[in-house]
Amino acid sequence: MPTLSQRIPQLHASPIREILAVINRPGMISFAGGLPSPDSFPDLDMQQVPKALLQYGASEGESALREQICLDMRALGLDCEPSQVLVLSGSQQGIDLVAKLMIDQGTPVAVENPTYLAALQAFRFFGARFVPLEPMNNKPAERPALCYAIPTFQNPAGHCYDLEQRRALAAYCEQQRSVLFEDDPYRDLAYDDCTRQPACSLMRGGSWVYQGSFSKTLAPGLRLGFLVASPDLLPYLVRLKQAADLHSNRVSQYLVLQALQHPQRAARTNELQQHYRHKRDEFADALQRHLAPYAEWETPKGGLFFWAKLKQPLDTQALLQQTIAKGVAFMPGEAFFHAPSNDASYLRLNFSHADEAAMDKGLAILAEELRLIHCRTALHWRASA
Amino acid sequence: MPTLSQRIPQLHASPIREILAVINRPGMISFAGGLPSPDSFPDLDMQQVPKALLQYGASEGESALREQICLDMRALGLDCEPSQVLVLSGSQQGIDLVAKLMIDQGTPVAVENPTYLAALQAFRFFGARFVPLEPMNNKPAERPALCYAIPTFQNPAGHCYDLEQRRALAAYCEQQRSVLFEDDPYRDLAYDDCTRQPACSLMRGGSWVYQGSFSKTLAPGLRLGFLVASPDLLPYLVRLKQAADLHSNRVSQYLVLQALQHPQRAARTNELQQHYRHKRDEFADALQRHLAPYAEWETPKGGLFFWAKLKQPLDTQALLQQTIAKGVAFMPGEAFFHAPSNDASYLRLNFSHADEAAMDKGLAILAEELRLIHCRTALHWRASA
Repeated sequence: MPTLSQRIPQLHASPIREILAVINRPGMISFAGGLPSPDSFPDLDMQQVPKALLQYGASEGESALREQICLDMRALGLDCEPSQVLVLSGSQQGIDLVAKLMIDQGTPVAVENPTYLAALQAFRFFGARFVPLEPMNNKPAERPALCYAIPTFQNPAGHCYDLEQRRALAAYCEQQRSVLFEDDPYRDLAYDDCTRQPACSLMRGGSWVYQGSFSKTLAPGLRLGFLVASPDLLPYLVRLKQAADLHSNRVSQYLVLQALQHPQRAARTNELQQHYRHKRDEFADALQRHLAPYAEWETPKGGLFFWAKLKQPLDTQALLQQTIAKGVAFMPGEAFFHAPSNDASYLRLNFSHADEAAMDKGLAILAEELRLIHCRTALHWRASA
Repeated sequence: MPTLSQRIPQLHASPIREILAVINRPGMISFAGGLPSPDSFPDLDMQQVPKALLQYGASEGESALREQICLDMRALGLDCEPSQVLVLSGSQQGIDLVAKLMIDQGTPVAVENPTYLAALQAFRFFGARFVPLEPMNNKPAERPALCYAIPTFQNPAGHCYDLEQRRALAAYCEQQRSVLFEDDPYRDLAYDDCTRQPACSLMRGGSWVYQGSFSKTLAPGLRLGFLVASPDLLPYLVRLKQAADLHSNRVSQYLVLQALQHPQRAARTNELQQHYRHKRDEFADALQRHLAPYAEWETPKGGLFFWAKLKQPLDTQALLQQTIAKGVAFMPGEAFFHAPSNDASYLRLNFSHADEAAMDKGLAILAEELRLIHCRTALHWRASA
């Protein structure tokens, strides 16, 4: 074996990848991924793509798209210029670029616990030492260089910060001179009233990166996202983008710009929200029917996931092996914690992908597995009593 | 300013980027970039793109595309399986992934001198210590962890390794237990007979990464390339790809597969070669007319560049500022050297982008600047004599 980087032992296979390999089996009911519903994909008019876009383009992205994104951000209250916008090959790339910008071996990085597992993986690869993100705590243990947060429809926990929490996060980053990295892929998938104002817009000075995605509202296969950063950070991020892949796909940039400037854009977002709200409500009903004896959860106001806490802690990886054998997949909660505990077990359950019949059947199978485990435990206790 | 990674001082703005910003000025004649000729872009049938491709896809790439790339590689003599193929968001991404896989602060990396400057930048960012790539030298100074080479139509120098050099490179990497990283974006742009057998195909065992690009023969704006790696390295590269951007654009993958399986593919490549061969010959004539008193060069058998050595060393960055003021851009040679010397000066001159009249005019302007510099030097010597 050749001599690899010292980072490589920190490069673990993604648990999502392993599960995605399984869920493509015919007949598998999957609550595992965060896949948008295929019914939601727009009709894209590819016939009109200008041939000039086949040439090399700018690392920052197409000017017209950067301007449109800037307008959208200003409408959310984030004060910015088009020059602060960087188009990304999907928002996973933003995580890679910010990790390169900020993280060396041992750099303290504050994260929610639980949080997006692919962010944990990317940060860990560059050597991050995770510390709790506690903006409401007056005496934090340590100044983090970077604070990574998903304030809106958090992945996996589903909650949405209220305005006070957003203000506290912004104030904390200012005070600690930490870079606030706000990841906001789900913001348009809102089903109930709640504040969604970017925490970055509440910072007065300081350094920040806000990023968004077109995967959830348009189409993941186009691999397009964006970030907006404070002017001190943006030039570095552009250079890192250039070193990573020169620039983003120009056909995708064209198609996304058409969608953002489409006269029916607002109506389309509304429709999408209705579609997913309905699926969420169906899923909530099915959960109540089947899982109420074994788990508790809050109904998320947006996003794509329910986050169910099991009443009795157990090995959810082992549970997954059992349910997969019966044709049902979910995401075990462990991988989302930078500091896992044995006190509680969680399942992340996606509600956007399965249809109503599959939801009901899949959750029934999951409940039956949990019932068997409870019985075995009860018998075990009776036997040892 | 927040606390950034210790790598960031090694993150320099790319000289190519700075020049690309200038060459978009109207009327500018550019010999600077490596831009394919826009006449060469294919007509892509985007109307047929299946909607299912808008969903998330596999990090490795689409199966059908990986199989086709594998067939193409086998036809070149590179023994591989489809499972060894990883589709990239352009071949710049391969450089980023291999740097992540291999390079820590101080890792010895052997490179040609000169070599592709964006590879030098990416390797330097991760802490590479460059050592000379000397496969024909029996007693190399130091074992490099990684050997990066562009054996076919090298960028910037334009030369093509003969079979003996390719064998020596492969044997050297085997012997030194170094990973051979063969970058091969220009291989289809061949205008004269020469061996183009991948050096990786000449390795017996050992670890290697071969990468290719669809930017030069199809279209850069699609941002698609690929790598094939020895089975020990591929799983790491897939994980790094997933952490970098989840997977490559699926619409591009579809369009590229159509082009690779097009019945007219060979004819199209032939046409492209004819087109560029003609431009190269026109450029060679114009060079001879204008630059013969001031520089020497070899006519490249393929690729997109002439590499001209000035007869009198001078500051080519300063020369560039002067020619830009007169509407002509080129790439100064310095940035391509990991260990620059003051003994010689080079210009990299792209011949694919400018039309015949612009070539003639641009090289005449360049020659006039060089003539003035020679005159000033002569006067200076006379004055001080």
